Amino acid sequence: MTKLAQTPEPPYYAVIFTNQRTDVVEGYGDTADRMVELASQQPGFLGVESVRGEDGFGITVSYWESEEAIANWRRHAEHGEAQRAGRAQWYAEFFTRVAKVERARSFTRKD
Amino acid sequence: MTKLAQTPEPPYYAVIFTNQRTDVVEGYGDTADRMVELASQQPGFLGVESVRGEDGFGITVSYWESEEAIANWRRHAEHGEAQRAGRAQWYAEFFTRVAKVERARSFTRKD
Repeated sequence: MTKLAQTPEPPYYAVIFTNQRTDVVEGYGDTADRMVELASQQPGFLGVESVRGEDGFGITVSYWESEEAIANWRRHAEHGEAQRAGRAQWYAEFFTRVAKVERARSFTRKD
Repeated sequence: MTKLAQTPEPPYYAVIFTNQRTDVVEGYGDTADRMVELASQQPGFLGVESVRGEDGFGITVSYWESEEAIANWRRHAEHGEAQRAGRAQWYAEFFTRVAKVERARSFTRKD
């Protein structure tokens, strides 16, 4: 199964979350999995792509129909708890960027 | 050194390149390194963040001052050669999304 998000034609929105993990492992994996599950249940969710390297640097990009959908997800109570725990324990630093996707191209190998 | 791009205040542009590698190793690493070096020399380049997981799924986000800067980089001859080789050999599938970053927040742990 592809790990690429199968998004519709633009325009739509992307939240680009780039981050460096701390060494704190406890609770992280379960919470990260839960946030993907929970985000995917929100209105306006279009998909998510995520990868983490061995050095603890990671990028997660989630896609949304509208700025309102992003605002609702940002205010979700359980997401808020996870964000607080992330700042307290799991992340050394991060950037969150909200961007409007204006165009997209995809490629799939023909074998 | 942080792997996070230290971008200026929005607005600016992001090129979100998400991709699944093939098993073809030959030439890939050198070309990928060269493209980062070359991109960083282009007018309007603001930074790049990149990570690849053990399963060959990767995300690279590059940041640019303007759509014109992105268009110039897309048309760069050596970049064009690398893109052709990527489609021919190195990528099973990919998405390239161009997005306008409208707002950003960052966090750095205080220790």
